[in-house]
Amino acid sequence: MSRITRKRKEDIGLSPYEIKFRGQKKADKTTMELFDFNLDFVHEISVKSIDKLRAYQTGDTITWLNVNGLDDVNLMKNLADIFSIDNNIMSDILNPAVRPKVQEFEKGIFVTLKMLQINEHTNKLSVENLCLVITHDYLISFQEEKGDFFDTVRERIRKHKNKIRVAGPDYLAFALLDMVVDNYIYIIGLLGEKIENLEERMTGNVNKQLPELINHYKQELNFLRRHIKPAKEMILTLAKMESEFIHDENRVNYKELQDNINEANELTDSYREMLYDLLNIYHTAATTRLNDIMKVLTMISVIFIPLTFIVGVYGTNFEYLPELKWHYGYFIMWGIMTIVAVLMIWYFRRKKWY
Amino acid sequence: MSRITRKRKEDIGLSPYEIKFRGQKKADKTTMELFDFNLDFVHEISVKSIDKLRAYQTGDTITWLNVNGLDDVNLMKNLADIFSIDNNIMSDILNPAVRPKVQEFEKGIFVTLKMLQINEHTNKLSVENLCLVITHDYLISFQEEKGDFFDTVRERIRKHKNKIRVAGPDYLAFALLDMVVDNYIYIIGLLGEKIENLEERMTGNVNKQLPELINHYKQELNFLRRHIKPAKEMILTLAKMESEFIHDENRVNYKELQDNINEANELTDSYREMLYDLLNIYHTAATTRLNDIMKVLTMISVIFIPLTFIVGVYGTNFEYLPELKWHYGYFIMWGIMTIVAVLMIWYFRRKKWY
Amino acid sequence: MSRITRKRKEDIGLSPYEIKFRGQKKADKTTMELFDFNLDFVHEISVKSIDKLRAYQTGDTITWLNVNGLDDVNLMKNLADIFSIDNNIMSDILNPAVRPKVQEFEKGIFVTLKMLQINEHTNKLSVENLCLVITHDYLISFQEEKGDFFDTVRERIRKHKNKIRVAGPDYLAFALLDMVVDNYIYIIGLLGEKIENLEERMTGNVNKQLPELINHYKQELNFLRRHIKPAKEMILTLAKMESEFIHDENRVNYKELQDNINEANELTDSYREMLYDLLNIYHTAATTRLNDIMKVLTMISVIFIPLTFIVGVYGTNFEYLPELKWHYGYFIMWGIMTIVAVLMIWYFRRKKWY
Amino acid sequence: MSRITRKRKEDIGLSPYEIKFRGQKKADKTTMELFDFNLDFVHEISVKSIDKLRAYQTGDTITWLNVNGLDDVNLMKNLADIFSIDNNIMSDILNPAVRPKVQEFEKGIFVTLKMLQINEHTNKLSVENLCLVITHDYLISFQEEKGDFFDTVRERIRKHKNKIRVAGPDYLAFALLDMVVDNYIYIIGLLGEKIENLEERMTGNVNKQLPELINHYKQELNFLRRHIKPAKEMILTLAKMESEFIHDENRVNYKELQDNINEANELTDSYREMLYDLLNIYHTAATTRLNDIMKVLTMISVIFIPLTFIVGVYGTNFEYLPELKWHYGYFIMWGIMTIVAVLMIWYFRRKKWY
Amino acid sequence: MSRITRKRKEDIGLSPYEIKFRGQKKADKTTMELFDFNLDFVHEISVKSIDKLRAYQTGDTITWLNVNGLDDVNLMKNLADIFSIDNNIMSDILNPAVRPKVQEFEKGIFVTLKMLQINEHTNKLSVENLCLVITHDYLISFQEEKGDFFDTVRERIRKHKNKIRVAGPDYLAFALLDMVVDNYIYIIGLLGEKIENLEERMTGNVNKQLPELINHYKQELNFLRRHIKPAKEMILTLAKMESEFIHDENRVNYKELQDNINEANELTDSYREMLYDLLNIYHTAATTRLNDIMKVLTMISVIFIPLTFIVGVYGTNFEYLPELKWHYGYFIMWGIMTIVAVLMIWYFRRKKWY
Repeated sequence: MSRITRKRKEDIGLSPYEIKFRGQKKADKTTMELFDFNLDFVHEISVKSIDKLRAYQTGDTITWLNVNGLDDVNLMKNLADIFSIDNNIMSDILNPAVRPKVQEFEKGIFVTLKMLQINEHTNKLSVENLCLVITHDYLISFQEEKGDFFDTVRERIRKHKNKIRVAGPDYLAFALLDMVVDNYIYIIGLLGEKIENLEERMTGNVNKQLPELINHYKQELNFLRRHIKPAKEMILTLAKMESEFIHDENRVNYKELQDNINEANELTDSYREMLYDLLNIYHTAATTRLNDIMKVLTMISVIFIPLTFIVGVYGTNFEYLPELKWHYGYFIMWGIMTIVAVLMIWYFRRKKWY
Repeated sequence: MSRITRKRKEDIGLSPYEIKFRGQKKADKTTMELFDFNLDFVHEISVKSIDKLRAYQTGDTITWLNVNGLDDVNLMKNLADIFSIDNNIMSDILNPAVRPKVQEFEKGIFVTLKMLQINEHTNKLSVENLCLVITHDYLISFQEEKGDFFDTVRERIRKHKNKIRVAGPDYLAFALLDMVVDNYIYIIGLLGEKIENLEERMTGNVNKQLPELINHYKQELNFLRRHIKPAKEMILTLAKMESEFIHDENRVNYKELQDNINEANELTDSYREMLYDLLNIYHTAATTRLNDIMKVLTMISVIFIPLTFIVGVYGTNFEYLPELKWHYGYFIMWGIMTIVAVLMIWYFRRKKWY
Repeated sequence: MSRITRKRKEDIGLSPYEIKFRGQKKADKTTMELFDFNLDFVHEISVKSIDKLRAYQTGDTITWLNVNGLDDVNLMKNLADIFSIDNNIMSDILNPAVRPKVQEFEKGIFVTLKMLQINEHTNKLSVENLCLVITHDYLISFQEEKGDFFDTVRERIRKHKNKIRVAGPDYLAFALLDMVVDNYIYIIGLLGEKIENLEERMTGNVNKQLPELINHYKQELNFLRRHIKPAKEMILTLAKMESEFIHDENRVNYKELQDNINEANELTDSYREMLYDLLNIYHTAATTRLNDIMKVLTMISVIFIPLTFIVGVYGTNFEYLPELKWHYGYFIMWGIMTIVAVLMIWYFRRKKWY
Repeated sequence: MSRITRKRKEDIGLSPYEIKFRGQKKADKTTMELFDFNLDFVHEISVKSIDKLRAYQTGDTITWLNVNGLDDVNLMKNLADIFSIDNNIMSDILNPAVRPKVQEFEKGIFVTLKMLQINEHTNKLSVENLCLVITHDYLISFQEEKGDFFDTVRERIRKHKNKIRVAGPDYLAFALLDMVVDNYIYIIGLLGEKIENLEERMTGNVNKQLPELINHYKQELNFLRRHIKPAKEMILTLAKMESEFIHDENRVNYKELQDNINEANELTDSYREMLYDLLNIYHTAATTRLNDIMKVLTMISVIFIPLTFIVGVYGTNFEYLPELKWHYGYFIMWGIMTIVAVLMIWYFRRKKWY
Repeated sequence: MSRITRKRKEDIGLSPYEIKFRGQKKADKTTMELFDFNLDFVHEISVKSIDKLRAYQTGDTITWLNVNGLDDVNLMKNLADIFSIDNNIMSDILNPAVRPKVQEFEKGIFVTLKMLQINEHTNKLSVENLCLVITHDYLISFQEEKGDFFDTVRERIRKHKNKIRVAGPDYLAFALLDMVVDNYIYIIGLLGEKIENLEERMTGNVNKQLPELINHYKQELNFLRRHIKPAKEMILTLAKMESEFIHDENRVNYKELQDNINEANELTDSYREMLYDLLNIYHTAATTRLNDIMKVLTMISVIFIPLTFIVGVYGTNFEYLPELKWHYGYFIMWGIMTIVAVLMIWYFRRKKWY
């Protein structure tokens, strides 16, 4: 599978206001869960009929509607209708390949970014688009498929009578975004752990699979970066946004979100540099090792070459070749050869050639 | 053909207000198509006489005039006259080598950028300059030659009674610009597909044509970058522009345009990095392979060199050379040589030299 | 131990307002020391009961409360209560992995950064998180464990009736932060000394341990950078902050702090570049040396190869080989070989091949 | 000649208000040409006496005074006097090594940058400093020597009754600056043509002169960059300048100038990158070729080494060496050697070693 | 000596208001020279008693007090007293390792940067800290030791009745700073001259000392950069400063100063790049040369290896080896060997292997 989403020919020139599902269907059926709460009570409802939603609209409670699955275009049109979501925003919600962005419209703020999740068992990384619509009294979140990603936040709403119950949809949105960013950092950390393990394995031996592994991790890191970088821009815009839909007392939380995404970004940079260093160390080690081998091999050759020459000399068939007649000529030759070899080895040693 | 347009000597010092065609003639004849529409009707007219244009000027409809071919200077002067286009802007329209830019003048906004298009059959990339003049009630687009680039937009005007029919010339301009940018992303995607295929082919074997291919793709990518980068700047300026000719409710579309061009830019950067990585991987693989070959070759030499020396010793003609007289001397020599060879191989193995 | 702190799975999605200790317990017991002073007197108290703290709150003295150890969550909650510290700030104080930051709240300013300290004896570097809460009339500092890091400042308070006694908690905070930054510079200097020593050792010989050492220092430098860079951002924010809790006359000190952290940053950059250069020099030297060795070895081979060929010629057993019959044939062969060898050496010399 | 101008010891500490010629004398004699024009007439005068200049000062015409040659300090002082040019500006005019800059003074704007010109015949590049002083009703241009650089502009003034005749000295200045920048682009284009030719010559063979050529072009490009970069800064400042001496209706032209200089800048960057790529391609090709040669040479050696060993074996003088007695021993040896050689070649082939 | 100043342990945590000399004593005795001047007269006084200074304080003259030597802490305290210099500024003056900075205080502006000076005879570079205090009617300059650095400015004051006599202490400060920056440019120029000479020496031969020289120049350049970069920042701050102590009519001079320091900065960048290119060219040349040598050596080996094999064949002692019996066998062998050698050489040539 390609790691980068490509533009489809048929999507060129489409109206940004056309409500059409532009992704791959991931959920069998579109389901909706609703949390309606204030400091006193929490109602959890699995929404079957869309008409009931209107009942939660006006009121003194915070309403969180979570929509799983995006391909039911009619439902989406109804939702847009009920909650006064602009067409071009609904069009973005239906396009899972949309770039992370934040956009204010008449009735609220639209925020989208990618959720990265790692499956504990298969160790596989999944990417899912998350869209949030924040208004005065409700938060709508759109996910491509049903998941338990936000269960911690659900628990917090259920159990604790604290800030999350009263601080408004913008604070709830912050809690969700914070979970997404925390997951970024967690996933980078998992990858980082492997990279640091690699570093330890490197000292000592030159393993030929290392460059391949390093390259593999680099691609994974690039994949993360490609999703984190636009998310960072988006959160920066959000943190600086002057909007009636973000309460002043929650603004500090968005600053914190910004700190977190910055940390995620810096971590990828750190690991990237670490991988780059590792590759360099590997190459240096491999080259040094090869050079040492070649040097030793060459030296062995060089030591034997003059010796072979000497025995060659006494292999000639000259009629008059005095040394051959000497009684100990053969042993003298051995002696000379030994001396030559020892001298060469001594010379190489003295020059610190090996 | 050179990939970068060069300044012609005769164009130095020309007045920026001189109406003169400065490109290569691409169209046989200048033709003009006119769309005049509002929510109720759409008129399509192939304009023959320039005088009829005046009729569409004032009115409660949106008028889109598309001009194909730029070399008819007289016609251009007349158009400038009718629509009050400044001379220096008309001069830019007639110069296909003009840099992407946006410029406001008394009666409207002038926007220019490059259209990139890929021919489905020949797979060749063509570059054409697009100029747009946006005023209160009309949009004029100038293309170098007649083409079907904007047919999707034409269909949207003909078929749907929606925003494009009423949102004004600035929204129509946005629709055209969006198609241009969508095409950028599409073309980058096509190139990206080839690059990702390359990546898959690489694992396994060291193909000598790879560096050439990589280099070829890199040049194509640079070509795209050279057109996309100034377009990005231009769109950024447009998105931030405070102008009476851009309606506030369409401003959000220009922000989206900006997101799209940013995505195009990031994609080229991603692929660029990917190519760079590929080249590195290729070089590492090629070097490793060469080193392995040379090491094995050198080892073969090194194993035979002492053996050759030994046989040399017994090739000497010394009168007194005891071993030669031994009955099994020859076989003992073979034995010794076998031991030497085995020892060397064992040593190389133990040292993990191959 | 991993050099980069990783996100723990269980911390994902926690409320930023939840008071929970998120670090490793370092101190056995949480202790508190209090300095209460003005120009006339200095009181030093080891605080046992938290209730006594209230007494020092309102008044015309400056109060510095130093808290060592963070794991006593109840105590922390009480402190937050007494000094009106926001929950999300107290939550950051209890998280030693928090990123350096500055944050204003209703009753004061919260500042956090990492203290780096080097143990004189073991030469080991320790990292500790420091949190400061600055209000109108007190400064609270939180350290992970009891230490003598700030003894110089304590002495200044005790001994001198000068600015530190009257300039307010913000000035005191500056003094502490300045010590932290001074320590950064001092520690970089220590590392820098080793790096500069390395540089001197390099001229002359090619030591194989050098790349490893260089790499080691590079990792240490990266470790420092990873803590100094966010501290720099934090201090920049602090210096530009418009806050009622920072007196205008102390603003100049914060500018100085900024200068210092900039210097720390530039020093790491300088040493980084120096290491990079060192590595390059090492590689160049090593490569040059290897090349020289291989060249000499190859030359020795090349000189002997024609000689071995010549003796080979006279080792052939042709029945009619006139030179063999010559009385001085053997010596003539030696002469020819000597000439060949001398010519080759002369040729190599003339070409400046060695 | 050095490519970078160096500070002279005697110029250190000079007053910036001291009127002294600080360049090399290039013109024999200082000459002055004057254009005085409005929509109705054009007067061209070769000014001999400086006193006549006063006559053109006040009036309803635009006056362009072009001064060639700068070493006549007295004349310069008089000019400064007549046109109220500040001393520190006149001091800059007399210093051809001055950095491109723009500076407003009481009576006008002072602009300076380098003119680059290529001699059609000798192909040599010359650098000359151009200074412009723009006031309400005149433009003074200072050149180091008499030249025909601005003849196109002179023709435009003489021939056409258009904007240049009425739009004021600031428009005239823009026309001159535009010619200078157009020349930058033209010269970069000429160099770019050579670089692109180089690219075509490269595919196919490894020419040893290429790195030298590439390096030569790189130096030329750096030379251009060194002059274009500060000119870009200067023009940026000029385009953003709020000054009474630049008419609002001419401001758009300065924006265009900015576009042009940006294009010049981008072109140098493009060619720079192209040269860098070329060098990389060259090195890769050269290395690949060398490696291939060395591999083949090594293989030839490796094939013969076992063969030489085999003949060595049968060159030994053992009394009992059965194979030597066999009638077809010699031919069997050849057979074995052929088999060995063929096997080795087959093995190398199968491993795709060449 | 270390090239980078390191923090001393005992300086950590010192109060920024403590008046203490923190440098190395360079001057035997602190001396003070005073210039008191206006357009009419110039008084030069060697100040012995500090009390006399008060006399020059109020008045209609400009007073320049130059202090050489900083270790007389009592004197410094008195000066601070007389001229109302803040303690933290005096503390910076006494610390020669202070980073270049500009700081406004109640009574004036404090400016500090490094003076670089080259000794004409010994060719050694010295660094000295310069501090300036600019107030309404006096300028105090602090140098570490007595020197003739500013003699040109002194002459200008003595000789010319011009701007420097009336334009105020801020203009005088500009004149001093301009000399400092001019010296930067001059020193960079000297180093640049050596670098450009190196470039010329390189074409032609591969000198082994070149990398060492290049590295040496690089270190010198880095040393310059380390002092020029913070000076650039400081001057930028100064040029943008809104202060009552800088007259509006002198502001243009500070802009010029900024241009000069920018030029210094760009020059170091240019030379840096030049050195980088030189090193690359050197390495390419060295590698090419080595490769050529190794190729030729390998070819010689490869030509002789088959010949040695052939003579080996006829050195075998087979009883039946027909060629040995042939009368011209020996000469036929020579003929074959000649043909083999010629064929190989011809093949290498045809392949353009050398």
